[in-house]
Amino acid sequence: MKHLLSTHDLALPDALRLLDTAEEMAAVGEREIKKLPALRGRTVVNLFYEDSTRTRISFEAAAKRLSADVINFAAKGSSVSKGESLKDTAQTLEAMSADAVVIRHPASGAPARLAASGWIDAAVLNAGDGTHEHPTQALLDAFTLRRHWAKVAGTGSPGSDLAGMRVLIVGDILHSRVARSNVWLLKTLGAEVTLVGPPTLLPVGVDTWPCTVRYNLDEALADRPDAVMMLRLQAERMNAAFFPSTREYSRRWGFDDARLAALDTLGLGDTVIMHPGPMNRGLEISAAAADSVRSTVLAQVRNGVSVRMAALYLLLAGGTHDDPAAPTVRANPALSPTKEPAV
Amino acid sequence: MKHLLSTHDLALPDALRLLDTAEEMAAVGEREIKKLPALRGRTVVNLFYEDSTRTRISFEAAAKRLSADVINFAAKGSSVSKGESLKDTAQTLEAMSADAVVIRHPASGAPARLAASGWIDAAVLNAGDGTHEHPTQALLDAFTLRRHWAKVAGTGSPGSDLAGMRVLIVGDILHSRVARSNVWLLKTLGAEVTLVGPPTLLPVGVDTWPCTVRYNLDEALADRPDAVMMLRLQAERMNAAFFPSTREYSRRWGFDDARLAALDTLGLGDTVIMHPGPMNRGLEISAAAADSVRSTVLAQVRNGVSVRMAALYLLLAGGTHDDPAAPTVRANPALSPTKEPAV
Amino acid sequence: MKHLLSTHDLALPDALRLLDTAEEMAAVGEREIKKLPALRGRTVVNLFYEDSTRTRISFEAAAKRLSADVINFAAKGSSVSKGESLKDTAQTLEAMSADAVVIRHPASGAPARLAASGWIDAAVLNAGDGTHEHPTQALLDAFTLRRHWAKVAGTGSPGSDLAGMRVLIVGDILHSRVARSNVWLLKTLGAEVTLVGPPTLLPVGVDTWPCTVRYNLDEALADRPDAVMMLRLQAERMNAAFFPSTREYSRRWGFDDARLAALDTLGLGDTVIMHPGPMNRGLEISAAAADSVRSTVLAQVRNGVSVRMAALYLLLAGGTHDDPAAPTVRANPALSPTKEPAV
Repeated sequence: MKHLLSTHDLALPDALRLLDTAEEMAAVGEREIKKLPALRGRTVVNLFYEDSTRTRISFEAAAKRLSADVINFAAKGSSVSKGESLKDTAQTLEAMSADAVVIRHPASGAPARLAASGWIDAAVLNAGDGTHEHPTQALLDAFTLRRHWAKVAGTGSPGSDLAGMRVLIVGDILHSRVARSNVWLLKTLGAEVTLVGPPTLLPVGVDTWPCTVRYNLDEALADRPDAVMMLRLQAERMNAAFFPSTREYSRRWGFDDARLAALDTLGLGDTVIMHPGPMNRGLEISAAAADSVRSTVLAQVRNGVSVRMAALYLLLAGGTHDDPAAPTVRANPALSPTKEPAV
Repeated sequence: MKHLLSTHDLALPDALRLLDTAEEMAAVGEREIKKLPALRGRTVVNLFYEDSTRTRISFEAAAKRLSADVINFAAKGSSVSKGESLKDTAQTLEAMSADAVVIRHPASGAPARLAASGWIDAAVLNAGDGTHEHPTQALLDAFTLRRHWAKVAGTGSPGSDLAGMRVLIVGDILHSRVARSNVWLLKTLGAEVTLVGPPTLLPVGVDTWPCTVRYNLDEALADRPDAVMMLRLQAERMNAAFFPSTREYSRRWGFDDARLAALDTLGLGDTVIMHPGPMNRGLEISAAAADSVRSTVLAQVRNGVSVRMAALYLLLAGGTHDDPAAPTVRANPALSPTKEPAV
Repeated sequence: MKHLLSTHDLALPDALRLLDTAEEMAAVGEREIKKLPALRGRTVVNLFYEDSTRTRISFEAAAKRLSADVINFAAKGSSVSKGESLKDTAQTLEAMSADAVVIRHPASGAPARLAASGWIDAAVLNAGDGTHEHPTQALLDAFTLRRHWAKVAGTGSPGSDLAGMRVLIVGDILHSRVARSNVWLLKTLGAEVTLVGPPTLLPVGVDTWPCTVRYNLDEALADRPDAVMMLRLQAERMNAAFFPSTREYSRRWGFDDARLAALDTLGLGDTVIMHPGPMNRGLEISAAAADSVRSTVLAQVRNGVSVRMAALYLLLAGGTHDDPAAPTVRANPALSPTKEPAV
């Protein structure tokens, strides 16, 4: 892999390699090793054309844990606001020897355009582009689900894929890059995906996606999903024509206390509730659901750092899965803890 | 100590331990040692819901001098502006393995709520909350006063406390978290505190505080204080009903050139003038006073870095004062300079 | 050198020392050495009163490549917006032990005032002040030209100066600190400079500058320059009285495709086209010109990091050129690569 642009084009071996590497990153963290020297001297630029503190600091923490230098470039208040093109910005970062560019952009396809342009040699990581994709979010969701699936199976170690798992993705599919990235990746990993939402918030062409579409959340829950992924309602992107009110939305498609109780009634002891954050508590998810033992919200955030460490590591220091001589994580001394004095 | 939330609840042994550790941090700096490895691999998040460049960069410099990684999280332009709760933000930082959260918040009590919530294992350092407290400011003021008191006493080394010292705190007490934190800490350290300000800028209940209240600055100066701490006039928080004009305020409660001269007339050769910054020169303090040899303004800023290094060190790497086996600063190899080549 | 404030006052030996040191920094980068320990433990503050992401991240990358800690201080949203003076801000940074202050300020002369004030011991680097100077931009331009001049001469190594080189600087001279810094430095290095622009965008007093002034770009090109430096049109600083339209400006003073072709027609195979960025493609420079093999735009950005590394290194770790015992870069072990494990 040279870039991480989408899950749509991520082959199964690459996806598994990312998830397996993320497991090793997580294992290092669990041994209380705070810092690895793998990317010392490398420069990671966070190029954000939209605000996203959560994603930005997750990438920043991941890069710093690998000893990279991080430069934050918020496109607001920069040359960009004076009309500089993506091309010129990219070439500027390239000329400054950026090794990786983590880009969030309001235009779908901007990261792919950047990667394909030849403007830049740096690795490009898509941190969310328009309504297109948000691949590291889908990878951290898959990582979280894989650990859960292994626990359900009692194997004790993360399985290789998600074959047989049933996942609901609920809410505003239309505007959600998280939903899109999850649909493609979950399909690649063998899960069965069902989308649930109001007809007005489903995109044209959804019938060609590799998933089932439903409109009634309660009926979908009755079909016994293993995971329910609630999407953030992006109220700022809506207009009144879509549906009567947020109250109506919450009643029909929110994961409220009644639906939380229903999981017990249905005997779904192992079903988890996911949310990419930030949550609108009381709107698409109730506080009780968000904080319940079924919630994976915090695990998702935690796993996000491991997944982003894996992505940065594989793109900047790893080989490709086609290359038998590529360093594996286990064999690479750069992933040993630093020799510097610990406290 | 697990957190640093207020000076109101800071016991004398903890206060002295912080001040003594700050002395060691200052001594290291004075030996031209620029960087200590004590917090290598630890992550300090600056979570600022209000702008405060001075305080933020002081904490940032302190953390970096201890080799920690620093992530700045300005709540503006973040998920917070999309309505994310303090709880969700805190849990996000926790899940990202933040070791310390330095928080500034417009709501009094937000840091204490964060620390008590169970949302987070990280150490919480209050960097100013509403009109409540600003404990590191009071600690750096006490550090400055302790060095001064030792000099007056001719002992050559900082005394253990401030017993017998007489301190005036002058100005807008009502809105000042700096005043509150100083009142509690100075009392704990044995100083005698007098508040001076317009009746309209004194809070209800000030009669229960462990200090004297006066309204006339010239009379208070005639009582021969050892230190005069001028507060910033936060004009943006006032309305016209409070007092006639800033000119009137300046004449009656500003430390102007006449009052600077009066210190000499009164024979108060050792009395110092303090200000937490940023100063409104010409309003609550004259330029001559701010720049006089009596001014400790720059020493306060300098000492701020030492005090914040001490706080971060004790919370993240130190034990508690109840623990006889806790590492002391002097014995801890992590506080030796790094072995890396100096230039 | 103690500060880097202007090229107007930069003596030839200092200019050459900066350029030679930048060559060594560039050579280190070309050997794939990512990080030098020279400024470990030093703190560089980027104090920006105007937005300038490009210049800020170039200095940030330079400082980090020398292992310095970097603190970004955007004066907006800081104490400065509460009315703090430059003096107080400077003293605050000094008290926090800043080793270098990189300052961009809308007021011409602010960096010089800061350096001369005695408020601060730190090295001051002017990153652009009003319409006055932008010395590191001129140094990176000279660095780029010196490499080009050596290539034209076939010497294979950068020459010592630019004697005999003919440089056009084209466009809005009136508002350009880049133009001013280049005029002084190019003159010092022995080049012949011609300014070309509309009479309304030439400053009063330009006749006293050490250069020729022309109004017709095509005539100036016919005089066979070795380099053509296009300036950014700062449309936001103009009013309608200056000239009819941007279209008119582009036609008469823009480097368009016709002028690009004219260089070939004139047989000027070695003439380069420069631009400090960010470019208004289609206004002062055509896309074809910006992306042609004659364009040095990206080399300028790349060289900017080397030049800023040199400036930080010489000001913080170097001696003065008057001091025969001053460490040279080659002899200084701090410029050897770190011993830490590479990946």
